[in-house]
Amino acid sequence: MSLPSLRLKANADRRLRAGHLWVYSNEVDTENTPLTAFQAGDQAVLENSSGKSLGVVALSPNNLICARLLSRDVQHPLTKSLLVHRLNVALSLRETLFNTDCYRLVFGEADLLPGLVIDRFSDILVVQLASAAMERHKTELIEALVQVVQPKGILLKNDSSAREAEALPSYVETAFGVVPDWVALEENGIKFEAPIIAGQKTGWFYDHRLNRARLQPYVQGKRVLDLFSYIGGWGIQAAVFGASDVVCVDASTLALDGVERNAALNQVDEKVTCLEGDVFEALKALKNAEERFDIVIADPPAFIKRKKDLRNGEAAYRRLNEQAMRLLTRDGILVSASCSMHLPEDDLQGILLSSARHLDRNIQILERGGQGPDHPVHPAIAETRYIKSLTCRILPSS
Amino acid sequence: MSLPSLRLKANADRRLRAGHLWVYSNEVDTENTPLTAFQAGDQAVLENSSGKSLGVVALSPNNLICARLLSRDVQHPLTKSLLVHRLNVALSLRETLFNTDCYRLVFGEADLLPGLVIDRFSDILVVQLASAAMERHKTELIEALVQVVQPKGILLKNDSSAREAEALPSYVETAFGVVPDWVALEENGIKFEAPIIAGQKTGWFYDHRLNRARLQPYVQGKRVLDLFSYIGGWGIQAAVFGASDVVCVDASTLALDGVERNAALNQVDEKVTCLEGDVFEALKALKNAEERFDIVIADPPAFIKRKKDLRNGEAAYRRLNEQAMRLLTRDGILVSASCSMHLPEDDLQGILLSSARHLDRNIQILERGGQGPDHPVHPAIAETRYIKSLTCRILPSS
Repeated sequence: MSLPSLRLKANADRRLRAGHLWVYSNEVDTENTPLTAFQAGDQAVLENSSGKSLGVVALSPNNLICARLLSRDVQHPLTKSLLVHRLNVALSLRETLFNTDCYRLVFGEADLLPGLVIDRFSDILVVQLASAAMERHKTELIEALVQVVQPKGILLKNDSSAREAEALPSYVETAFGVVPDWVALEENGIKFEAPIIAGQKTGWFYDHRLNRARLQPYVQGKRVLDLFSYIGGWGIQAAVFGASDVVCVDASTLALDGVERNAALNQVDEKVTCLEGDVFEALKALKNAEERFDIVIADPPAFIKRKKDLRNGEAAYRRLNEQAMRLLTRDGILVSASCSMHLPEDDLQGILLSSARHLDRNIQILERGGQGPDHPVHPAIAETRYIKSLTCRILPSS
Repeated sequence: MSLPSLRLKANADRRLRAGHLWVYSNEVDTENTPLTAFQAGDQAVLENSSGKSLGVVALSPNNLICARLLSRDVQHPLTKSLLVHRLNVALSLRETLFNTDCYRLVFGEADLLPGLVIDRFSDILVVQLASAAMERHKTELIEALVQVVQPKGILLKNDSSAREAEALPSYVETAFGVVPDWVALEENGIKFEAPIIAGQKTGWFYDHRLNRARLQPYVQGKRVLDLFSYIGGWGIQAAVFGASDVVCVDASTLALDGVERNAALNQVDEKVTCLEGDVFEALKALKNAEERFDIVIADPPAFIKRKKDLRNGEAAYRRLNEQAMRLLTRDGILVSASCSMHLPEDDLQGILLSSARHLDRNIQILERGGQGPDHPVHPAIAETRYIKSLTCRILPSS
């Protein structure tokens, strides 16, 4: 397989040599290797300005991130064989770490598979392709997955917003075998069912697994409020771990159907109540009704999707956390999470501190959690780190 | 109790209103309230420049941090009664979180008790006083502890370097009851014994409790190297969790006596080997002997004790982690910790990335851990956050 070259400008190789995998379009020596010569999804040998090879890249010539490094060895371009190798390396980590076959099997760049996300629900795989190269190698990928994982069904959940930047169409389709609407999964020893076709993203958020496990010592006999509950990932686990009473709030009927389904599955339906509606409205109503909770979990969708949302997004996190604190009993616990990669953990902590001070409370940060190990962070690529969870105790000021 | 005033310069109250507890000497309006009028350990009412009260502070007039806020309510100066209240608030958190009575009971500022650290080993308390005010209130503190915790013995381990800045003498003495040389403790369900009088700091490091618990899924059947092992906090837990073979390295004979004692206590002595000597020398010797480990734990003492150590300290972390990576088997795991508060987590991550690149390896950050919840972070006081633990997988570059 002979690949064309993509040449970088002088010094533009530094970030890649330091471990990064992305090439920005302004870093390419377009006089010698014009991006217009490539189709989206083409592969090339990436060279520094002196012609030294840095590895194989996949091209997205019309995207700001115009190329992603697939391999530092030019002998290993993106083929079924490379996919099988990378999948085996990813699988061996998950098999070591979990005594269940429910996890994120591939997390894009951090598993050296840029543009690919795969969540595994035992025999069912939900795949998200977010680059032209992965889309073009769909057939080889499905073959590689069948070889490595032997699934009963593979769903392509190709409706993420990342596909727009790659000019890829949005679609959801069964690529292999039979895929049900809801799948069974296990997290922290607790059984769930998730709507992989109609639900959010891949249907389930494995990224908070370890943070949810840490609810255990906090919730014994306590009253818990789960905001933006989706299908009960936090709330049902709190109930199973021993909470006396859990209220799940979400605006989606499908999500709350999922909460009820999962509560019944775990025989905690008598302890779990659903409240359908806008979370901020619900917070006001609960305050007016003088309801109080020992623990409030605030794990909202990303309020900051793009950098330009930063100001409004931070204000939303502030409003949410401050209103959540107002509902706490004395010395209560707030679990405040964010999946906005544009909100660093320190900024979330700052929001929590100023919210507490605004209410004249003291605050202790008891635990800080990140995404679980099936969502590894690529330390050169800040975008691969996105989950933050801060467990805080809110005390009277005195 | 009528207290004198300590007045701040204009705007110097901002940081305190935002949650901080410290006053720096250059922030005091010394024309109106000269610091020379105070003795170390005196209390005062802190006022902003307009005379509005901000609460009660304890003074250390000769220290750069010349005052610490004890209470935002002038009705509550430091007395036995305040100590009893604060101890109860601290104790209730630990009793909720742990099903053992072994933990850090008080973590200074974060428990609103500046200058006070207490580690609890069931019936025995090890206390560190690091401020003139706490030293002066020693008797009330011991009385409060006897009332709240009913211990059998209280040891004052007053030999920390923080006491120098307060011009306090270094001493170790039994302040109440009977204190043995070694105490029993439990962490993550595993029994240990720790030398509280002759050992490091309070004798045991509870701060890594949750990070050590997370060794469990990684170590099954694996060969583990524990660098700077002290008395085996990581290594013995790895052995009990199912490691096939653990090598503990430390320069201290007392520490390795502790490893042997704790290995025997947990019936893992056949799996645990001790290597006495300088860790960097041991790393070289292990490399020369072509020894390899599936997991290396590198949890050194603070290489950066003061800001001026930053450059040399970072170099030491780099050398340690790079040498540790060289000893790993393929796809091996490095647990890299730092207790240097001057080394932010991002900088440690940067060191790990550049070390891996220098060895032409890929690196995944699988988990990031902080200090356990018995070491709460005060979000306004950066110094209260100090523990970092990054669990990394080191892969061949390809």
